Amino acid sequence: MVTSPILSELGTEILIPICAVIGIIFSLFQWYLVSQVKLTVEKPAAGDGKNGYTEALIEEEEGVNDHTVVQKCAEIQNAISEGATSFLFTEYQYVGIFMVIFAVLIFVFLGSVEGFSTSSKICTYDATRMCKPALMTAVFSTVSFLLGAITSVVSGFLGMKIATYANARTTLEARKGVSKAFIVAFRSGAVMGFLLAANGLLVLYITINLFKIYYGDDWEGLFESITGYGLGGSSMALFGRVGGGIYTKAADVGADLVGKVERNIPEDDPRNPAVIADNVGDNVGDIAGMGSDLFGSYAESSCAALVVASISSFGNTHDFTSMMYPLTVSSVGILVCLITTLFATDFFEVKTVEQIEPSLKNQLIISTVLMTIGIAIVSWIALPSSFTIFNFGAQKVVKNWQLFLCVGVGLWAGLIIGFVTEYYTSNAYSPVQDVADSCRTGAATNVIFGLALGYKSVIIPIFAIAISIFVSFSFAAMYGVAVAALGMLSTIATGLAIDAYGPISDNAGGIAEMAGMSHRIRERTDALDAAGNTTAAIGKGFAIGSAALVSLALFGAFVSRAEITTVDVLTPKVFIGLLVGAMLPYWFSAMTMKSVGKAALKMVEEVRRQFNTIPGLMEGTAKPDYATCVKISTDASIKEMIPPGALVMLTPLIVGILFGVETLSGVLAGSLVSGVQIAISASNTGGAWDNAKKYIEAGVSEHAKSLGPKGSDPHKAAVIGDTVGDPLKDTSGPSLNILIKLMAVESLVFAPFFATHGGLLFKLF
Amino acid sequence: MVTSPILSELGTEILIPICAVIGIIFSLFQWYLVSQVKLTVEKPAAGDGKNGYTEALIEEEEGVNDHTVVQKCAEIQNAISEGATSFLFTEYQYVGIFMVIFAVLIFVFLGSVEGFSTSSKICTYDATRMCKPALMTAVFSTVSFLLGAITSVVSGFLGMKIATYANARTTLEARKGVSKAFIVAFRSGAVMGFLLAANGLLVLYITINLFKIYYGDDWEGLFESITGYGLGGSSMALFGRVGGGIYTKAADVGADLVGKVERNIPEDDPRNPAVIADNVGDNVGDIAGMGSDLFGSYAESSCAALVVASISSFGNTHDFTSMMYPLTVSSVGILVCLITTLFATDFFEVKTVEQIEPSLKNQLIISTVLMTIGIAIVSWIALPSSFTIFNFGAQKVVKNWQLFLCVGVGLWAGLIIGFVTEYYTSNAYSPVQDVADSCRTGAATNVIFGLALGYKSVIIPIFAIAISIFVSFSFAAMYGVAVAALGMLSTIATGLAIDAYGPISDNAGGIAEMAGMSHRIRERTDALDAAGNTTAAIGKGFAIGSAALVSLALFGAFVSRAEITTVDVLTPKVFIGLLVGAMLPYWFSAMTMKSVGKAALKMVEEVRRQFNTIPGLMEGTAKPDYATCVKISTDASIKEMIPPGALVMLTPLIVGILFGVETLSGVLAGSLVSGVQIAISASNTGGAWDNAKKYIEAGVSEHAKSLGPKGSDPHKAAVIGDTVGDPLKDTSGPSLNILIKLMAVESLVFAPFFATHGGLLFKLF
Repeated sequence: MVTSPILSELGTEILIPICAVIGIIFSLFQWYLVSQVKLTVEKPAAGDGKNGYTEALIEEEEGVNDHTVVQKCAEIQNAISEGATSFLFTEYQYVGIFMVIFAVLIFVFLGSVEGFSTSSKICTYDATRMCKPALMTAVFSTVSFLLGAITSVVSGFLGMKIATYANARTTLEARKGVSKAFIVAFRSGAVMGFLLAANGLLVLYITINLFKIYYGDDWEGLFESITGYGLGGSSMALFGRVGGGIYTKAADVGADLVGKVERNIPEDDPRNPAVIADNVGDNVGDIAGMGSDLFGSYAESSCAALVVASISSFGNTHDFTSMMYPLTVSSVGILVCLITTLFATDFFEVKTVEQIEPSLKNQLIISTVLMTIGIAIVSWIALPSSFTIFNFGAQKVVKNWQLFLCVGVGLWAGLIIGFVTEYYTSNAYSPVQDVADSCRTGAATNVIFGLALGYKSVIIPIFAIAISIFVSFSFAAMYGVAVAALGMLSTIATGLAIDAYGPISDNAGGIAEMAGMSHRIRERTDALDAAGNTTAAIGKGFAIGSAALVSLALFGAFVSRAEITTVDVLTPKVFIGLLVGAMLPYWFSAMTMKSVGKAALKMVEEVRRQFNTIPGLMEGTAKPDYATCVKISTDASIKEMIPPGALVMLTPLIVGILFGVETLSGVLAGSLVSGVQIAISASNTGGAWDNAKKYIEAGVSEHAKSLGPKGSDPHKAAVIGDTVGDPLKDTSGPSLNILIKLMAVESLVFAPFFATHGGLLFKLF
Repeated sequence: MVTSPILSELGTEILIPICAVIGIIFSLFQWYLVSQVKLTVEKPAAGDGKNGYTEALIEEEEGVNDHTVVQKCAEIQNAISEGATSFLFTEYQYVGIFMVIFAVLIFVFLGSVEGFSTSSKICTYDATRMCKPALMTAVFSTVSFLLGAITSVVSGFLGMKIATYANARTTLEARKGVSKAFIVAFRSGAVMGFLLAANGLLVLYITINLFKIYYGDDWEGLFESITGYGLGGSSMALFGRVGGGIYTKAADVGADLVGKVERNIPEDDPRNPAVIADNVGDNVGDIAGMGSDLFGSYAESSCAALVVASISSFGNTHDFTSMMYPLTVSSVGILVCLITTLFATDFFEVKTVEQIEPSLKNQLIISTVLMTIGIAIVSWIALPSSFTIFNFGAQKVVKNWQLFLCVGVGLWAGLIIGFVTEYYTSNAYSPVQDVADSCRTGAATNVIFGLALGYKSVIIPIFAIAISIFVSFSFAAMYGVAVAALGMLSTIATGLAIDAYGPISDNAGGIAEMAGMSHRIRERTDALDAAGNTTAAIGKGFAIGSAALVSLALFGAFVSRAEITTVDVLTPKVFIGLLVGAMLPYWFSAMTMKSVGKAALKMVEEVRRQFNTIPGLMEGTAKPDYATCVKISTDASIKEMIPPGALVMLTPLIVGILFGVETLSGVLAGSLVSGVQIAISASNTGGAWDNAKKYIEAGVSEHAKSLGPKGSDPHKAAVIGDTVGDPLKDTSGPSLNILIKLMAVESLVFAPFFATHGGLLFKLF
């Protein structure tokens, strides 16, 4: 019954790395294009036609010959880039210590499963075969953990570098018009998107092939040790998201509370001492954090699919092409995203402000449609027409078209989540306009309406996720869920591109303001940024949706590996796990939100102090002390990221060791179903408040004008909502994705240990 | 192995009704004592020593001879009472229609299980015996549903009547000092507490005995039909909580936003057109809603215990005394609470403001300690030393001391939840003081800190609930969980007394302000009210904790009745249920919060309109139009309570009919573990904001003084937090208890139908 796929093993071995390399080359080419915008003023703008300033312009130019502006932009960009680099290095030092400790833990715990024996053992799932010793799996798990962690760190760091390279260039291009600026910002996003997607794929592919040299035919051990890659990726993502999130929001909230609310100076005004910290924060939080996060999701869903496949017919029959199906899907995804990108940069041109948002939305639609075809082809050539998948003790027969449906349902669910998120967070639609309207009666009603909006925005995404789970689970058990997650993430390059576009535009606006550029340029960057707010929310929607699927798949893999066949809610062990698991996201959110609040209070005091004690600061004759504010954010985020990080990393270990795998299963299921709701509602509530404020500020419609202008009472109420939303949408909300994924992948990695030595408390009593 | 309990059947038949009657008599006696405070001014205060004004006074009197004040108080009380009565009657009309429709549904659905056959059938759990026809169980379920609904409505209505009878009397007594006022408010709370507890017990007891005349030895059918009582009680509680919650918060938020924030007039100022609506709201929301809610919990936990017992050895051996164990526990609870009450009213006297809160807290401690002894005695005399309990298909052997531990762990978990709630919501401790401190930097940080506090306050209560579940579940399966819930609710009379005390004091303060009484009297009522805020939060903590246990017990009973033995998270049907179930509390909260927001906006517009168009209103020379504000609240709450009500009532029906019992099990478990967290965090966040504001207003410590006084920027920020918290703590939060209980009890009642005809969608495909 099990046939061979059309694509040969050699074909697979060639296809995957080639796609990855194409992705990297494309990314470098985009970088080259961005770099054509010069930040140096060596050649005076004599109109020699080669410095990029004298191309045919769509809109009227403004101040393009002003060298001091270029220089100022370059300076500010440098300050931001240096701040971000120095913060990330500090963060990585701490995270590095953690990485080493955790690597030792992995080695010791997994090595102890068979008492550090160096002799081969009977395979867990196929008692007729011999597998490599558990000790070697411990070694390789540790190695792949470190590889995943390093890849994640590199992904985040490169993303930050690209973003800080692109922001001032976007500002300068904005002098020539919206269209030019949009292209630069979008191309820079694409650099990051393709680099991360291709890099993640390539490292994983190479690791598998290297490990295979040792493991040979023992695919069970091979792919079990590969799961360390997912754990490494996700644990770095956690610190990136939490640390970066606290950094950026402490600075943002602090800057806004004194600057906008008390001193009545514009956002990003260079007189505000926290303004550099704020802009650094966008890059370390939204860019580096998001990069690590999505890389983690990608690595984990691949690992979850691979580990389940290794004990299914693919693994049993050593069918390498089918085994690599998840990676082949991602490879084709890179090609699809490449074509999609051309639609935004080459095939069509964004000429007006109104075209920006549709252009970004079209990216999502085009990539999804093309990818559907891509999945169909991959499912046809890279899979046998029929095969079996491990399903909690039994093998389930699956057809290739069923697997196509699994991946497809994930892909389209992602699109639906994206659009629902847009509907609830864009100020083009009634939900955000209602929230803006509620500002008439003050901040309290604004907060009430915003919270209600966030709660409501959960409904459709949850149904979309539930349907994906039902379809993929029914067709192909946990393998189906894992590939559904991969389907959602298959267009990750495009998703990251439009996601990174947001903070780049935001920074571009900040630089324009700080460089003292004209109001019109700021208007252009604001238009870019408003679209970016919505795409950021969409990106978070994707991140959360995929996290839910990924963590379910990992949960399934964990349960399989821990050799339990049911997780029955009707047993006290499981139920209390479920209840406590559902509580963890609250505990975690309480920690991260309070951290932001505390750090923001310190920032407020410092900014107030500077305004009060530095003479001439408000008049613009004296310079503020940016460095102290950067230090406050840095210190706060490093210090405050440890307790929530410890909560997430230690919970599976403590529960697994003391209460055993059943209770741990309950905890994972509970935190998954509860965390996904808070994550969606927190990020949409925050996005909606931000755009409600922007809606009042922009004053495009009659309704919006009646609420404005800046400084009016409704606007002040809107600013309060926006500030409350900051930690929700950029710290606690997006970190929750990682919480649910990370606990699941950690449980999976430690499953052999828990299955052998876990549940001490119940064993004692 | 199964022995007989010490207490004879006759003893049980006598003990339960006697305790209930004692409770009712005690309640009436307390009412008599409250009624000694005269609201009429027939007898001029000539000092004849008989009108209650000339007793020995502890503190200096003030204005006790001012007849116009007495008359004014009486008028205001009348206005509040009439408003509340008229609202409740309107609400009951709508609810009555629902009740009739739902009664028909119950009859049709349950009758159809055996095709409306009038012949006896083989029992579900004992195939060797014959049971009464399903049609008759449909009839009796319908009857018990109606009885439960009516009892719930009567409970809420009586509570409201008592509270509106007592509020002005408390105000008048406040002229004589804090001590007198406290006694009146507390006694009135006790009237409500004892009346509800005794009444609920008595009606249930009589119903069981009447149904037994028909059912005879068929206890399976008898107690299955009794579950309708719980459903009736809880569905009325839902409408009471949601409708009352929207009413009270629309009025409160509306009154505050214009009165306190815009016009800078004090709370409860008679010039505010929404002031009567606000005070009516306290009585229909906090009093009638809470009364119905706790009655519902009590009825449901009794029903859950009875239905499981009926298929355990108690039911199989027709051991009536053991069968009535849940009711005997409640009976002894009434006696224990009676003694406890005397500690507050007779054994010790509250002499100063500082003694109020300890006195109320002592009530909790005393009742818990005494009740522990009570449970031990009941478990000893009313249970055989060893018996078996139905445990999802098997019978589990349980000892009587184990059941004592089950009830006890619930009782003490309740106390812990109460104290944790107090810690997080009372302004005597650092959490609320931190929130108050964050008001320095404005409303945004206040909201961030408040939300974080609410999230954090979930941790210990969830562990307390988890431990109770683990202990009771491990010892005695779902019966253990049900009696643990009963344990938590066994001191319900005391719990309700200190809970009702809060809104009564709140109203007393309102009346003092409206009647133009002096600042000192208002200070006294404020002191009573501040303690009431904390006890209200404690009451909500009990309500939520018991709801979690109750709904788990009901869920277990449902699963047993639906004849499934495992609810495996690792099946797609169950998992999607879990995920969607966890989403429902968000959907529900979104609806209720938005309803409050919308209604409050309307209220704000009306209040503003009156201030702008009625000449002399601000100067106090013209009277506002209270009736229009009352009408806005009434209309809004009636209209807006329907969609959330429908969501809760229809979900189990739709899921059960279309997707079947497995998915429904998932939905119940998901909504339980997710809902309990939101409920706790919402009610504590709201309570903390309210008391942070009060902390700043009272200005007792140096720290508090540095934030005040009223009208300062931090105080304004605190008022915004308080307003945001209103719908969280009084509308969406407490309604969520009912959501999780009601869906479970409804599933239980309809279980025979779902088991027979459910899961249409899966049957089709």
